[in-house]
Amino acid sequence: MNISKRGSRIQASPIRKLKPYADQAKKEGVHIYHLNIGQPDVPTPQPVWDAIKNYNEEVLSYGPAQGFLELRQAVADYFQSYGITVGSEDIIITIGGSEAIHFSFSVVADYGEEILIPEPFYTNYNGFASFAGVQIVPLTLDVEEGFRLPPEKEIESQITEKTRAILLCSPNNPTGSVYTPEEIERIITLVKKHDLFLMGDEVYKEFIYDGGTHKSILEYPEIQERAIVVDSISKRFSSCGARVGAVITRNQEVYQSLLKFAQARLCPPSVEQKAALDAYRMGSEYFQQVREEYQRRRDVLFEGLKDIPGVVMHKPQGAFYIIVKLPIEESEHFVKWMLTDFRVDKETVMVAPAQGFYSSPGKGKDEVRIAYVLNEKQLKRAIYILKEGLKKYQNLFSKNEEKPA
Amino acid sequence: MNISKRGSRIQASPIRKLKPYADQAKKEGVHIYHLNIGQPDVPTPQPVWDAIKNYNEEVLSYGPAQGFLELRQAVADYFQSYGITVGSEDIIITIGGSEAIHFSFSVVADYGEEILIPEPFYTNYNGFASFAGVQIVPLTLDVEEGFRLPPEKEIESQITEKTRAILLCSPNNPTGSVYTPEEIERIITLVKKHDLFLMGDEVYKEFIYDGGTHKSILEYPEIQERAIVVDSISKRFSSCGARVGAVITRNQEVYQSLLKFAQARLCPPSVEQKAALDAYRMGSEYFQQVREEYQRRRDVLFEGLKDIPGVVMHKPQGAFYIIVKLPIEESEHFVKWMLTDFRVDKETVMVAPAQGFYSSPGKGKDEVRIAYVLNEKQLKRAIYILKEGLKKYQNLFSKNEEKPA
Repeated sequence: MNISKRGSRIQASPIRKLKPYADQAKKEGVHIYHLNIGQPDVPTPQPVWDAIKNYNEEVLSYGPAQGFLELRQAVADYFQSYGITVGSEDIIITIGGSEAIHFSFSVVADYGEEILIPEPFYTNYNGFASFAGVQIVPLTLDVEEGFRLPPEKEIESQITEKTRAILLCSPNNPTGSVYTPEEIERIITLVKKHDLFLMGDEVYKEFIYDGGTHKSILEYPEIQERAIVVDSISKRFSSCGARVGAVITRNQEVYQSLLKFAQARLCPPSVEQKAALDAYRMGSEYFQQVREEYQRRRDVLFEGLKDIPGVVMHKPQGAFYIIVKLPIEESEHFVKWMLTDFRVDKETVMVAPAQGFYSSPGKGKDEVRIAYVLNEKQLKRAIYILKEGLKKYQNLFSKNEEKPA
Repeated sequence: MNISKRGSRIQASPIRKLKPYADQAKKEGVHIYHLNIGQPDVPTPQPVWDAIKNYNEEVLSYGPAQGFLELRQAVADYFQSYGITVGSEDIIITIGGSEAIHFSFSVVADYGEEILIPEPFYTNYNGFASFAGVQIVPLTLDVEEGFRLPPEKEIESQITEKTRAILLCSPNNPTGSVYTPEEIERIITLVKKHDLFLMGDEVYKEFIYDGGTHKSILEYPEIQERAIVVDSISKRFSSCGARVGAVITRNQEVYQSLLKFAQARLCPPSVEQKAALDAYRMGSEYFQQVREEYQRRRDVLFEGLKDIPGVVMHKPQGAFYIIVKLPIEESEHFVKWMLTDFRVDKETVMVAPAQGFYSSPGKGKDEVRIAYVLNEKQLKRAIYILKEGLKKYQNLFSKNEEKPA
């Protein structure tokens, strides 16, 4: 009576495994600035709350497997506002972007087949790949190169007979990079040449700074049948706990299979679908404010970190993350040490060791991901504590050439 | 660029594929009595609505992957009220019973491995099995035998080298049978002998009639490490659209794997978890009323059907379903015909063809599943229409020996 191989192989969330140390610090009365997870502090917009409070039915019943038609229409209208024409019949409402990823992996690949993903990548892709029995093949990008995509030949060298899809996440979690149209077209050439699906995780598309714009993979008619887009309201409307996302595809064969996956799990939560509907109807002014706020935060963070000697990073163009290479040996040890040993006036900072965002062994060992999900004042304080911690850590470990345990 | 095999093989929901005919009838102004799905008409209890209305946070944020501690404690207390001791650390809150099934299948079996399930069974087990790449091996039960489990030897003959678990759903969807302690013990002997997991889908445990009681697989200390229970608030609290369920296991290795699956999808919906918490705290008087209501409905339905010549069925002991063998050739054709061709004063009835609840080819062709999810008055009217429809259908097709198209 052994558990399944997938059950034993699936990796523990690398962010969550440090949680016990954070819990212990909190027990001791220490305040932690959480820059480790992508949980925005931005208040959830009022229409979301109003829709929840005003939900008025006698029975909290099942909805359609593909989501309420009204909501699918609102999602279609939202895409139309970006000049992208999709119909409600191209959209399946999912239980968060998470389920959209899981469904997409499962529809493009069978057990042991491969999906090519630039790394570092969103760590939960690993979880869903294990769960679905799919292999992620990493295309390693480099912080020193600002995480730009390599030349076509180099990308192509990672495509095998088992490759079924390439996944692009843009704006990117965890690097903050936004792929240029030229980079996207480089990938499109390859998916056409090798007859692959192209998956686009575009959940951060409103979070693009310095006047940059988002280019969706849905905007290329030549890959109309290949494109599968993952969407979510979690970050866009600061509604992570609502668990409402979507998968969008114009390929009707893909759609019909996704629908059958959706039917097996019955439906997404009904109340939050109504909340999502009212969120989508808010229009673009809401995003404008949110975007300005995050751009300020990015600037505060980037300016704050750049004078640390030995730090390597690239200014994020989008999302609310940055990967920072630190002048230390093992970021996991550093992050843990910050939680267990370092305080400034009973305060400390938690960031995410970057190793969990890579699937190539050893990669990202000296990098961390920082999520700028706190307001400017808190962010400044957190940067100060992080710098002080880093100084002390370097004194303790690097200078004494003591090996971290 | 083909979709995955699992994507093309997964079966369409046999209940949902008749939906277009129902939609068409509704468009024509026909009222349909829906006895085809397990969507209770019982009002969702007020504490659920109050919790939703009173949810008061600034940010609708992620909760813990395993669900809020408070809710897990409430679920543990609820089990304790049945004399079953489990701790909050044995419980993972899932996105409906659906996710609990999916997680459980994935943790006990790898691709191509087998789970033995008495058939007819809840049709969505098929969907999750395809999705997870697991093979369901049916143990065929017979309506003529009241769907009792066969002798040990006969069950054992279905166990192979690839079998990893047996799943018992009791009270049963779709048969309405409740396994006796003796039947459960027959299965326990086999799971011990063949070193298997035992999965218990016990979501209908309050729906047991005539003073009968539920025996959980968690009550057997000798299979403490083997037992995995699927639970859900959907039917118990008439909250199908909330998508809150749970998986309960005392096996810590299983638990840790389930937790990693849960971490990949981040968390269950936050608002509904609070609603579920208040539902669990309502106590047992609530169930008493609901149970009496369903017992009356069962009696109305059973009495109403039993004088139809040629009908074979067995009085359900629990849940709110009955499998009825009809004196016709193809129940799918009959169900469709009722939707397209038969009306009494602009009304008709929809039931579920039973074939989709069997995985053995050809089984259940002349059976239907009827869900008694309407009130007594509506149920009586629906039975009348069903009887009239059956009479006319038999005249049209059986007597003329016309082959249904």
